[in-house]
Amino acid sequence: MPSRGGPARRRFLKSGVALGATLVAANRAGLGESQPAPEDPSRLLGNPVRPYGQRSRFEQAVRDPRGKTDEVAVGNRTPLDATFGIITPSALHFEVHRGGVPDIDPRKHRLLIHGMVDRPVMLTMEDLRRLPSTSRILFLECQGNGQLEWRAPTEKTVQGTHGLTSCSEWTGVPLSLLLREAGIQPGATWIVAEGGDAAGNERSLPVAKAMDDVLVAYGQNGEAVRPENGYPLRLIVPGWTGSINVKWLRRIKVVDRPYMTRMDGTGQPVIMPDGKARQFGAFMEAKSVITFPAGGQRLSGPGFHEIRGLAWSGRGLVHRVEVSTDGGRSWQDARLQEPVLALAHTRFRLDWRWDGRETILQSRCTDETGYAQPTRAQLVRARGVNSRFFNNAIQSWKLMSDGSVHNVHA
Amino acid sequence: MPSRGGPARRRFLKSGVALGATLVAANRAGLGESQPAPEDPSRLLGNPVRPYGQRSRFEQAVRDPRGKTDEVAVGNRTPLDATFGIITPSALHFEVHRGGVPDIDPRKHRLLIHGMVDRPVMLTMEDLRRLPSTSRILFLECQGNGQLEWRAPTEKTVQGTHGLTSCSEWTGVPLSLLLREAGIQPGATWIVAEGGDAAGNERSLPVAKAMDDVLVAYGQNGEAVRPENGYPLRLIVPGWTGSINVKWLRRIKVVDRPYMTRMDGTGQPVIMPDGKARQFGAFMEAKSVITFPAGGQRLSGPGFHEIRGLAWSGRGLVHRVEVSTDGGRSWQDARLQEPVLALAHTRFRLDWRWDGRETILQSRCTDETGYAQPTRAQLVRARGVNSRFFNNAIQSWKLMSDGSVHNVHA
Repeated sequence: MPSRGGPARRRFLKSGVALGATLVAANRAGLGESQPAPEDPSRLLGNPVRPYGQRSRFEQAVRDPRGKTDEVAVGNRTPLDATFGIITPSALHFEVHRGGVPDIDPRKHRLLIHGMVDRPVMLTMEDLRRLPSTSRILFLECQGNGQLEWRAPTEKTVQGTHGLTSCSEWTGVPLSLLLREAGIQPGATWIVAEGGDAAGNERSLPVAKAMDDVLVAYGQNGEAVRPENGYPLRLIVPGWTGSINVKWLRRIKVVDRPYMTRMDGTGQPVIMPDGKARQFGAFMEAKSVITFPAGGQRLSGPGFHEIRGLAWSGRGLVHRVEVSTDGGRSWQDARLQEPVLALAHTRFRLDWRWDGRETILQSRCTDETGYAQPTRAQLVRARGVNSRFFNNAIQSWKLMSDGSVHNVHA
Repeated sequence: MPSRGGPARRRFLKSGVALGATLVAANRAGLGESQPAPEDPSRLLGNPVRPYGQRSRFEQAVRDPRGKTDEVAVGNRTPLDATFGIITPSALHFEVHRGGVPDIDPRKHRLLIHGMVDRPVMLTMEDLRRLPSTSRILFLECQGNGQLEWRAPTEKTVQGTHGLTSCSEWTGVPLSLLLREAGIQPGATWIVAEGGDAAGNERSLPVAKAMDDVLVAYGQNGEAVRPENGYPLRLIVPGWTGSINVKWLRRIKVVDRPYMTRMDGTGQPVIMPDGKARQFGAFMEAKSVITFPAGGQRLSGPGFHEIRGLAWSGRGLVHRVEVSTDGGRSWQDARLQEPVLALAHTRFRLDWRWDGRETILQSRCTDETGYAQPTRAQLVRARGVNSRFFNNAIQSWKLMSDGSVHNVHA
């Protein structure tokens, strides 16, 4: 049935059938997934070019919102079970915020750098884009990733258990360059970064890290940072917890101590077994997860399947990922997709022949420091079960003989 | 003015001003760039999360269609002057096709592998996704990139001169695996790949290349291949001319000779100075271009500017990029953004202080084979001016004292 543009459409319209116009209109506006595609697309002239492309109408993977306060969802998780490679599509990058996504005009946006500096500066986006820049493929992870999994398996899918991590190519100006221009005064040891959203996220960060590898980023995956990821400007703190990568960045104050902001600690307490709270958690420790087969999926049957997953470490390179297909009794090295990049997601894969029997699948990441991802039992021994954050335990997926896959603690 | 969702919006609606509803509707449907953003976004609750994100309404970079036949534009070029890093946003990836973009239901799509094989196979998308996969960041370039530039500078911008190249992370199944499964018969030396669009693009490819590093790709930048780039399946032939990376791939026939299809030669002739035509151009030779400052842009004034550009080679790694700011009299090494990946775009940058005087900016790429990008004069001496394809000459941008930048031959 000719429902596309071009000659076929013109012939159809000439025949005077009213349905033709309806179909064309539906096409221009974007057909839904339920509309049939042509039986043989090669017999019809296809769609015209678009200035800014969209994905196929048959692709339906979306982010998963949780933690709704009033009208605003706090988190929106990446469907890790639907992504390929190491780049997360920007449209599916996870987001966490507590005041909604601000609508910011980049022509009006400013970055103020002040406090214990010799020369306070106020920068426009144009100023920033003119400066020496760098690009880096980096993961981000919210410290609350997996926060409901401490006591019992709660989420059904890998999007639920691990979807608060994503990986992009970020482009921007080294913060060290800006701080050198401003001139840090003696005794200044911390900075406080402030976002321009309604929640006023503020985070304290040691000057040593700020002068090391932090970026003031305006680019994400080749274009401007997406609104929910900080448009037009975001602090990127490689390897450190998501919230310190302050979005909608508008101010950096150079100071002589941490400011003990809500997000520095009291708003996100890490409760240890003795009841004390740990503050200033920074590095995201080595972690990995199998994204196929994963919770909520169903294997079509016994035989060959490629086990796939992602691994990352806030300490640097992923050195090794092992996979167990027998609940942790034996482990095999997975293939790591080259290039393996420091502080980026690393895609791992393992060829596997499923015999059709019930079993448990797990992955374990070891980073370049030699640190190995702990089992859940090891993590709980060290940290108890009152902590919601920094859960990097080995994930267990139970594969049933009917091919269904379930989140379990093993 | 409260135009966002949440409490601010509710207060506004409660005041009974009809304009409130209008503004909210405009917001939900997506405000245009002309609508003002809040003066201070941090005083208003922001927008809610979206299942599948979009870029900011203030970002307007689009692809540039050219070569319209009837209603269908043949090419749509990437705005290289608006991209960052090495990943091209999928929404801005260049596209070339002659029958429009087919509307393909992945559940109905099949890949047939037949001809001189022991076991012909017909694969569904589900079959393909189950097989061992790999991911690779790779550039693509249409051999027609810069085709109007042989005789005189014609296009005004880098999008016009060089926009038929882009770079993505592609994920799929190694073709070698599929061919080994099918069993190539003795004497088979070529394959013919066929696309499922209305133009019926067919390309012949030596078995040696097919067994080397070719991918049957279903993933692009972390999600499904975009419709205009071959959804749901595309042949990816690293380093080789764009059209041989057959989109909407539906058939691979294993044969004992090239099939001399239209796109193999007669439809895209490379006319040499002696009048003979060269066929089966494959590798895209080393090339580079400065994307800032570039044609159509205007420098804000003398002083510091970061010169930025992209380089690539179909032979492997970019080894070196040199930049001249004096029309080719002297050259300086640009910084290459790590990681430098074989057969991918490489981002280069050079710090530069403009003295405000008229000059000509150029870049020159040398690849790992030692091949250096030719000047336009060298290219014309070897190839004449009757060839439209494989133009990899050094690009010259003339910077005027008023800061404007122009495409010139120098």
